[in-house]
Amino acid sequence: MTQQLFVIPLWADLLGVGLGGVQGALFASGFVGQRRLDLLGVVIIGTVMGMGGGLIRDLLLNVELATLHSNWYLITAVGAALLGMLLAGLFQRLNTVIVALDAVVIGLFGAFGTSKALGMGLPVVPAVFVGACAAVGGGILRDVMMGLPVAIMHVGSLYAVAAVVGCAVLAFAHALGAPLVAGAVACVAVTAVIRLLAVIFDISLPEQRALHRRKVAVETGAIPLIRP
Amino acid sequence: MTQQLFVIPLWADLLGVGLGGVQGALFASGFVGQRRLDLLGVVIIGTVMGMGGGLIRDLLLNVELATLHSNWYLITAVGAALLGMLLAGLFQRLNTVIVALDAVVIGLFGAFGTSKALGMGLPVVPAVFVGACAAVGGGILRDVMMGLPVAIMHVGSLYAVAAVVGCAVLAFAHALGAPLVAGAVACVAVTAVIRLLAVIFDISLPEQRALHRRKVAVETGAIPLIRP
Amino acid sequence: MTQQLFVIPLWADLLGVGLGGVQGALFASGFVGQRRLDLLGVVIIGTVMGMGGGLIRDLLLNVELATLHSNWYLITAVGAALLGMLLAGLFQRLNTVIVALDAVVIGLFGAFGTSKALGMGLPVVPAVFVGACAAVGGGILRDVMMGLPVAIMHVGSLYAVAAVVGCAVLAFAHALGAPLVAGAVACVAVTAVIRLLAVIFDISLPEQRALHRRKVAVETGAIPLIRP
Repeated sequence: MTQQLFVIPLWADLLGVGLGGVQGALFASGFVGQRRLDLLGVVIIGTVMGMGGGLIRDLLLNVELATLHSNWYLITAVGAALLGMLLAGLFQRLNTVIVALDAVVIGLFGAFGTSKALGMGLPVVPAVFVGACAAVGGGILRDVMMGLPVAIMHVGSLYAVAAVVGCAVLAFAHALGAPLVAGAVACVAVTAVIRLLAVIFDISLPEQRALHRRKVAVETGAIPLIRP
Repeated sequence: MTQQLFVIPLWADLLGVGLGGVQGALFASGFVGQRRLDLLGVVIIGTVMGMGGGLIRDLLLNVELATLHSNWYLITAVGAALLGMLLAGLFQRLNTVIVALDAVVIGLFGAFGTSKALGMGLPVVPAVFVGACAAVGGGILRDVMMGLPVAIMHVGSLYAVAAVVGCAVLAFAHALGAPLVAGAVACVAVTAVIRLLAVIFDISLPEQRALHRRKVAVETGAIPLIRP
Repeated sequence: MTQQLFVIPLWADLLGVGLGGVQGALFASGFVGQRRLDLLGVVIIGTVMGMGGGLIRDLLLNVELATLHSNWYLITAVGAALLGMLLAGLFQRLNTVIVALDAVVIGLFGAFGTSKALGMGLPVVPAVFVGACAAVGGGILRDVMMGLPVAIMHVGSLYAVAAVVGCAVLAFAHALGAPLVAGAVACVAVTAVIRLLAVIFDISLPEQRALHRRKVAVETGAIPLIRP
């Protein structure tokens, strides 16, 4: 393969891991009573949120796990989790900054995941899937380890949707012959904008709905049958 | 390796993925109130049920994930999940058809998984394990992502047991020198028959039980001690 | 790589798998009422506890899963789970022996995982991470499949901490040029001693805590503001 891959720079990757660690610690601090986490629990949740996306991405691609081939990922995730725990009050006041940074970071992770998948020869649709998993996988792993239902299936605010749309922009730009770097920049921009607009205007996906709801209602007697 | 592998045809693989998607959507529509899933949640559960078995199979075998090397798997899973959501009423009336098709599909997935494992040189017992994981892995992932205990450990109706027995038939037939295709046909037949008989006659596994229950009862005083 | 790896002997590996199976069955027997497990459920939990650590280790290292390349691992895990279920009363009386054996086994698993990771060229920190996952991964998978929050994040008694410290001893000894076997012996000894001391003296990690707790209290009015 002679094509240039879009490679996320280490500092951006570590920024994402660190943000994940802080967010994990803030999430963990919300549990009180019986489910209260100890120190190790906070560190585990921070590590899982910071590194989970990259781990899932590389498992899906069946390549060596990049985040385990440098000391810095784990050190950053653990350090960020401890910092997030100690300075929970400060970080909660910085919430706006964190949400904005996080919107950029899921765009970066999605762009890196999609680009890595395309570079390995995956078709467009699975490449978008891998990118989206890289972007939101940390949060999924966090919920699974907490024994909670996975949040992105319930809450909305277009978190995962923003990642999917951004990754799709990159994949289709690539399919149309655009250079990967341009596609990656578009991916990050689209993801961040959708995510931030959704947060600002409180937009969310519609709930699931079935066709023929009226028919069902008729059958159960809730609506009187109209005879022709 | 010169031996012919039993390869599931793409249409059968996609039929299985599609059925999983529909079943995932029907499962998701059962959640109301606080745990109600949005559109994306339905799509995720459908995708996980349709593709989870194949993903787990290939992760256990440490080979590239086959379901990510074609666009069709994800398109089928997502499409089937949306269809299942929109036509939930229709599909619920087709329940008998779906249970019957599903019994054949877990047989096919089990046969494909076991045969792929044997083809890679795994011994008999792990090959059966991989086949069973391929057959029931989607349901396991679904439960994990919903934060629920894994259903096959509790409910019975011999779902996983049917898969294990079918895969074992294939593995032992192969060990005795039978051609893989014959073994695979036997696997599908055995799995489907056990599963359907279990559904029809409501057969399930016995609950766990400990020996010496009486002794324990004696120790706790529930049964008066008989002195010799 | 010419360096001699520390290879856990098969009997020790199987002892660990068998202990995990017994412990899984004892854990499963604690669930009554609606969440009561059937026979297959007990076998699954036993298998997951016995083999989960090794599976996670090899997935993280992206190598073929060693526990699926011999019939003995699955046979041992399933047999041990059934034995544990039938003789639950007996094993519960042997609790002290099981806790002691388990402390040695998590040391062995941690040493094997760390050494395998170092042998594959991973840096020190990720190698310790892989070793710790190998030691406690079975318990994590068990909790995830039961839909429970992962226990090592909550309960303490320094279970995971003992594994991390032991693995770190091995990794740093290796970095300083010590032979792997010596490091592995130290790892097992350190892990087992920390774990047993923690059980005997009921030591656990401190709960998470934030700095500036007073400041927060001031802001919420719980503590009257002192004006300068």
